[in-house]
Amino acid sequence: MLFRQLFDRESSTYTYLIADPLNKTAMLVDPVLEQVERDLQLLKELELSLRYCLETHIHADHITSTGKLRAITGCSSVIPAGAKVVGADRFIADGETLQLGAISIEAIATPGHTDSHVAYRINGVSGAAPKELRVLTGDALFIRGCGRTDFQGGDAGTLYDSVTQRLFTLPEETLVYPGHDYRGCTVSTIGEEKRWNPRFVGRDRYSFIELMTSLKLENPKKMMEAVPANQNCGNVLFVS
Amino acid sequence: MLFRQLFDRESSTYTYLIADPLNKTAMLVDPVLEQVERDLQLLKELELSLRYCLETHIHADHITSTGKLRAITGCSSVIPAGAKVVGADRFIADGETLQLGAISIEAIATPGHTDSHVAYRINGVSGAAPKELRVLTGDALFIRGCGRTDFQGGDAGTLYDSVTQRLFTLPEETLVYPGHDYRGCTVSTIGEEKRWNPRFVGRDRYSFIELMTSLKLENPKKMMEAVPANQNCGNVLFVS
Repeated sequence: MLFRQLFDRESSTYTYLIADPLNKTAMLVDPVLEQVERDLQLLKELELSLRYCLETHIHADHITSTGKLRAITGCSSVIPAGAKVVGADRFIADGETLQLGAISIEAIATPGHTDSHVAYRINGVSGAAPKELRVLTGDALFIRGCGRTDFQGGDAGTLYDSVTQRLFTLPEETLVYPGHDYRGCTVSTIGEEKRWNPRFVGRDRYSFIELMTSLKLENPKKMMEAVPANQNCGNVLFVS
Repeated sequence: MLFRQLFDRESSTYTYLIADPLNKTAMLVDPVLEQVERDLQLLKELELSLRYCLETHIHADHITSTGKLRAITGCSSVIPAGAKVVGADRFIADGETLQLGAISIEAIATPGHTDSHVAYRINGVSGAAPKELRVLTGDALFIRGCGRTDFQGGDAGTLYDSVTQRLFTLPEETLVYPGHDYRGCTVSTIGEEKRWNPRFVGRDRYSFIELMTSLKLENPKKMMEAVPANQNCGNVLFVS
């Protein structure tokens, strides 16, 4: 499996390029509009055909490049089931899988940051070693943090359940690849987050809700532009 | 092997944490002073004992945290042979290796960005699969780029020789982990860089020298502070 983590500095977003090097098909998870040229160039250089663009959720802090990439490459747009999105090719629900050559990608419903959020478990080729298990956690679980829960149908109790019941029950050696990082970390493991994530360690559901409610965060700068655009697969900016 | 890539946003520097999970010893390559608390916290959480801090070269854009980490943890400072550094524990020359549990780290002399620059080849446990070969290329080779050659004994012709004769001769599947990235890329391979790095593809030594000479870059903002500090293992700022 080819696996590349890519970073958008302005929004601190991680995009993931995953490909089967044998059949040369690829997918991008959470691609960022401003990085579309970089990502197309990389696909070209690696001689990969873009099959899917996946979103973990409808982002409020940046606009997806999915619409633009679909117009250019003909790839399919894959959106979490329940998201209010027009023009997606497929909605993916909890437990459903995508196949990319020998790689299987399974959606794990992890609402709470938004009301329709999924994580993607990447199983790799069958018989992959435990250290090669990966989960792309979007904004449900960050490295020593988690996404906010105060808009877009977010709910702190729901996020607590998603993280503790759906993500923390994965094998401890599973590599955690988040949707954002603000401190320069790139990867963690489920075991590490269970032991050290200050949002969850030593907190019950009630205490987590209290913590999240007390945060009083400002809205993302691009929210008014990004959410409507992302509800249209990111198409708002460039269709005439 | 535990392998973590860490990013300092201000200087766009990658620091690498490498550890043997069995004997719990670790090393940091090119650690950044401003990130010392993050890195110490991560070492503590992973229950790792810091054995070495390695530099690929004397940096001009940031101050190393090696001196501070050595004072706190007792780790050894490892510096490329020939670097004008006071107070290092070991100077490592081309072909010499460090052992960290089951992991061997080999210095590859790659001067040209500075006059005493090494890359570090991480072989992993013996019998590692080809896809697990890694080289930390410092400022000799970036992803689709390379370090500048206009100060600290830098020399474009020497860098051309280092990259084409020492790095591009490694197995093509070797993963390239650079000292900096400014576009949000995290990793590449030797094969990719041979095919797509615009600083080298289609250029002979003379043409590369012409290109590097024409760049006319401004000096790094922290150069006057960073170089003297790094020539003292980063100790200037915090010894009384």
